[in-house]
Amino acid sequence: MPQHHPPKTPAETAAPTTRVDSAIRAITDYIHGEGLKVGDRLPSEAAFAESLGVSRTVVREAFKSLAAMRIIEMHAGRRARVGGFDASVMALSLTHALRTEQINAPQMWDARRAVEMRSVALAAMRRTDAEAAALLEQVAQMRDCVDDLARMTELDIAFHVAIADASRNPLFSVLVGSLSSAIRETNPMVWRHRRDNETRRDVVEAHAAIAQAIADGDPDAACAALAAHFDLAARALATAGFN
Amino acid sequence: MPQHHPPKTPAETAAPTTRVDSAIRAITDYIHGEGLKVGDRLPSEAAFAESLGVSRTVVREAFKSLAAMRIIEMHAGRRARVGGFDASVMALSLTHALRTEQINAPQMWDARRAVEMRSVALAAMRRTDAEAAALLEQVAQMRDCVDDLARMTELDIAFHVAIADASRNPLFSVLVGSLSSAIRETNPMVWRHRRDNETRRDVVEAHAAIAQAIADGDPDAACAALAAHFDLAARALATAGFN
Repeated sequence: MPQHHPPKTPAETAAPTTRVDSAIRAITDYIHGEGLKVGDRLPSEAAFAESLGVSRTVVREAFKSLAAMRIIEMHAGRRARVGGFDASVMALSLTHALRTEQINAPQMWDARRAVEMRSVALAAMRRTDAEAAALLEQVAQMRDCVDDLARMTELDIAFHVAIADASRNPLFSVLVGSLSSAIRETNPMVWRHRRDNETRRDVVEAHAAIAQAIADGDPDAACAALAAHFDLAARALATAGFN
Repeated sequence: MPQHHPPKTPAETAAPTTRVDSAIRAITDYIHGEGLKVGDRLPSEAAFAESLGVSRTVVREAFKSLAAMRIIEMHAGRRARVGGFDASVMALSLTHALRTEQINAPQMWDARRAVEMRSVALAAMRRTDAEAAALLEQVAQMRDCVDDLARMTELDIAFHVAIADASRNPLFSVLVGSLSSAIRETNPMVWRHRRDNETRRDVVEAHAAIAQAIADGDPDAACAALAAHFDLAARALATAGFN
């Protein structure tokens, strides 16, 4: 039962949206106040409705908004649970912002470079031997599919996320995951300009150099290799007409 | 009318969540396919329901999820519009992740440092004279309220966001806005350990050095001043028991 928030009488004039927003805040405050962790169960919609003094419809709307933002997880017939932090919501926002031209591809790549410079440095300092081996294996897979753009794009994203995971800072996994997933929007245009296999192989070898520096436990070399990778991408973006 | 997606007959066995997720994808694909921009109107829920071959309830749920993620904006009695990209959704995710201990304060500050290093460098290269003057004025306001934590925290966030705005990359405004807003969670603990006014003034003067370097159009000095600011914060976090 949510005890932190004494029943309130909603103003009759309040817009439904405002009441839903208040309920969202009350529910997130409840999660914090009770010290709930990922997977912990929330009180029922009815219990929140009673303690907040609002209708179940308002609480249901608040639950659905929180579920859309992955702050809670809802499953039919079961009590809602505290949700885990992942890249999906931010990835959707970024893709939307790119598609509606609120940000452009070079801006996205510029932010991504800033984030990944730290991600690769941390990975070089903290990766396990198994993670180093997995990164080198991912590069080997990339070498085998320079002609398959769809597969290459997914391997590329997975490679950068694996590095972020090895940084041992889950925020980098989320930032790198969402920023790198946006290349699904731009790679079809960029890759078309990488017609010859030599240029495409340069891209793969840029990834190989990053993986090797991380395996060697050398943060400076990892940053230098990442810079070379992003310089290559910046030239490809310019050639493809992004600016 | 959404024409991109021919009517589909939903499988009778499909879970409602799956149908809502499909509708979300179809609506975002429609926005992209039609080249809609921020503020443009969407077709009605009824029109989407018809063209997607799903119930209006499914489309309504999809609209509400998209509204929660700020991808569309809904207002009672009016047609939904394409939403603008802002920091609010990511800020809520980050605050939730901090509160539920999925990420800790030093991890948040580490990612923030990586992002802001680039943000201040770009601001030093691109800021207008008006933006430079505004940053110096914000520091003057900070000097006047070293004893008022709540006001200092809001000025601090606004200062970092103003720098990101001056970077001319809206993605930095969103990343810095959401990452810096998370200090509302940690500042009460950190600031308590900055008891004497001298230490608190050091924090203000660290901001003054950043503002001056940006006003001077000196990216290297701006990065050095930001590094000093974050080193000060890292020491305060350690003193306050974050690790």
